[in-house]
Amino acid sequence: MEIPPVVIDRLPLYARALASLESSGREVVSSQELGQQLNVTPAQIRKDLSYFGRFGKQGRGYNVQKLLEELRRILGLNRQWRMALIGTGRLGRAILGYEGFGPQGFRIVEAFDSDASMIGKEMAGLTIHDTADLEKVLGAGPVDVGIVAVPAETAQNAIDRLVKCGVRAILNYAPIAAHVPRGVQIKRIDPVLSLQGMTYYLKAGNSSPK
Amino acid sequence: MEIPPVVIDRLPLYARALASLESSGREVVSSQELGQQLNVTPAQIRKDLSYFGRFGKQGRGYNVQKLLEELRRILGLNRQWRMALIGTGRLGRAILGYEGFGPQGFRIVEAFDSDASMIGKEMAGLTIHDTADLEKVLGAGPVDVGIVAVPAETAQNAIDRLVKCGVRAILNYAPIAAHVPRGVQIKRIDPVLSLQGMTYYLKAGNSSPK
Repeated sequence: MEIPPVVIDRLPLYARALASLESSGREVVSSQELGQQLNVTPAQIRKDLSYFGRFGKQGRGYNVQKLLEELRRILGLNRQWRMALIGTGRLGRAILGYEGFGPQGFRIVEAFDSDASMIGKEMAGLTIHDTADLEKVLGAGPVDVGIVAVPAETAQNAIDRLVKCGVRAILNYAPIAAHVPRGVQIKRIDPVLSLQGMTYYLKAGNSSPK
Repeated sequence: MEIPPVVIDRLPLYARALASLESSGREVVSSQELGQQLNVTPAQIRKDLSYFGRFGKQGRGYNVQKLLEELRRILGLNRQWRMALIGTGRLGRAILGYEGFGPQGFRIVEAFDSDASMIGKEMAGLTIHDTADLEKVLGAGPVDVGIVAVPAETAQNAIDRLVKCGVRAILNYAPIAAHVPRGVQIKRIDPVLSLQGMTYYLKAGNSSPK
């Protein structure tokens, strides 16, 4: 059965809320409470989870630990993922220094740049490779995810080359709507979309949802 | 009438797709085609837009330019928004250099840091203020949006201070689930959530939606 992508996108949010409940010692949670925390209707949560089997008991709520384990298994969060970073300019260096990846199983294992002044430098425990050697390096040690932090003009080319190397998931920080072939996932980190979702509430007369 | 936040979050995506259609000369688009581009059902699009009035004619599709103008008006995209950045480390400097904000009407007009070696420096046309002066600076020239690019430990404090200065929209890059009072919007830029939405498809046996 094909699961709609929007459902898959909501599962990490459920997993995060459950992990927070688990760490505060909660054993059971209702779809009402989970929904309230996440701004999703309880019916939506029940429907989303129903794709993956029966988790809750009618009127009893979900077992926090069991559901969290199951979501982690479904999403593949219980393993390590290898990532390659292309672009070690300001943004790339900020990504290399980001402390949120490691605890969630995501590790940058290779970094590339085309700037001669960066190639060969040590950064965050990695030696920066020449982007020209991308195919050679990833041929010797494949990665699961490619992170693209190059300027807009060269981003599509970087993505094409990652895909040719067999990378099937791309996190794109460049401000372009990039194209990938069928079977390859791509997500764009786009602060403008986030801002545009907030300005509605800044306008006079629009009430806040919180 | 209260519009559900998930609907508001989808409107910028509609606006972006329409802007792209407009720039390629298209005059009319169906909810089917728009939905296909965005991975949203046509029924969902019609329902989302119905909150704001009647846009399309049955069987005729939407007038691209008219709908785009309307969405821009609804979202407040047809004006300039002033933003303050807190934190000018690696990440903050990458944000200052980000070229995607300006064309969409978002402008960083003040930057703050608590590091003595940064305070007073010129960067992207701005003089970096001492974070200690946040209230004074924003008191003299209010901003609409606060961008938080400080470490996790100090992020909640930075957010609290922005809120006290009257800032009602926060873009949070720090890896914490921050709290804001009722009436204040906050969005988190969270690459881990994006990655977790892709790993599902990397697991053997899960077919790709594309």
